[in-house]
Amino acid sequence: MDNFEENIIKAGFILPPPPTAAGLYSPAIITGNLVYTSGQLPLKDGKLIELGGKGKVNEVRKDEAFHASRVALLNALAAIKSVTGSLDNIEKIVKLTLYVSSETFFSSQHLVANGASSLLHEIFGERGVHARSAVGVTELPLNASLELELIVQYKP
Amino acid sequence: MDNFEENIIKAGFILPPPPTAAGLYSPAIITGNLVYTSGQLPLKDGKLIELGGKGKVNEVRKDEAFHASRVALLNALAAIKSVTGSLDNIEKIVKLTLYVSSETFFSSQHLVANGASSLLHEIFGERGVHARSAVGVTELPLNASLELELIVQYKP
Amino acid sequence: MDNFEENIIKAGFILPPPPTAAGLYSPAIITGNLVYTSGQLPLKDGKLIELGGKGKVNEVRKDEAFHASRVALLNALAAIKSVTGSLDNIEKIVKLTLYVSSETFFSSQHLVANGASSLLHEIFGERGVHARSAVGVTELPLNASLELELIVQYKP
Repeated sequence: MDNFEENIIKAGFILPPPPTAAGLYSPAIITGNLVYTSGQLPLKDGKLIELGGKGKVNEVRKDEAFHASRVALLNALAAIKSVTGSLDNIEKIVKLTLYVSSETFFSSQHLVANGASSLLHEIFGERGVHARSAVGVTELPLNASLELELIVQYKP
Repeated sequence: MDNFEENIIKAGFILPPPPTAAGLYSPAIITGNLVYTSGQLPLKDGKLIELGGKGKVNEVRKDEAFHASRVALLNALAAIKSVTGSLDNIEKIVKLTLYVSSETFFSSQHLVANGASSLLHEIFGERGVHARSAVGVTELPLNASLELELIVQYKP
Repeated sequence: MDNFEENIIKAGFILPPPPTAAGLYSPAIITGNLVYTSGQLPLKDGKLIELGGKGKVNEVRKDEAFHASRVALLNALAAIKSVTGSLDNIEKIVKLTLYVSSETFFSSQHLVANGASSLLHEIFGERGVHARSAVGVTELPLNASLELELIVQYKP
């Protein structure tokens, strides 16, 4: 049994309550020993965070978006916990996909994704090493700066 | 045995013939008990539908795109049936990804996705509750308004 | 035992060394009998290739991007080999996702994707027939012209 939830606190973060179930779809779905999350936005208490959570990302706002990717990641982890009961039974982070709402000429989506990737490493260590895609999109729901989804393997 | 195919008719829709096999790739692929579809466009009889099927989506064309997402969903379900033989053996809709060709400032991709999500709910009930991502992209093949892909779990 | 690696040479290509491990994430991750790759760029020797590897794709640069999609595909296959030991134990190409950095009005992302799809067919034959999504995005890391990811099923 690992102590991944403790590691979140040690890293200085708090696991938020699970994203609101929208009714028609779910924050996360289990199939076999995999959990797929819905795309998560940098929401806190139901609102896009002020620091890097809204609008298009550019070179100047890169570091704010790095921070926002961690907020979205915590929402994704909360979504997973809502269906698995705990994060401590995660065996492997399989895949992270990050969509960054990007201004033309902004081509550092990978540096934004490093916010989430490095926090995954802090929390899950070797089990947090994942495959990853980061792309720049035109617009996102609610004018969010980014949307993040995870696939993880867990022990049912 | 469920009657999901009957539910499509009850909901007022007709399952179209499976998307044309393109030769180099397939409308859907089975791996284990999962089926992955290719990205499906709002095509009907080989053409993008007039109502919301073409061009970029904006606030004004949101409801048309809601409709188009259902047409693309039906194509995805037809793709699944072409490899599983029936939709009645679907155990779970795992993941829906919707790419919406979006004008700048259009940030309601999630409302467009509700067209497909609500129809999934009508057809599959509790088994239709899925994880979901909706993002706004620059352009899509053939100038389509949206592209939709599914991952489902079925009973082989 | 198939000879997929030989087929790469027969097709006139060379499998590159595996993409550099970035530390925080991995070029590919195994879960069960599936391998997920990270998004791969058209890099050769650590640089975006001159022919179609950089910038936004439009109608004029379509054929160059077709070529670039094959370079990204070879990087994805190298990523898979780095975790499975060989490509000859691949049972099925499950899913290809291609993000094409697209100029406004460019709507032939599917024709760009045919570069990778046709090479998959040359290498893997019937086992190379996959599900596929091709979308046009705003910007990609390093100003790459495209980013490609694979999911494959292999025999552990």
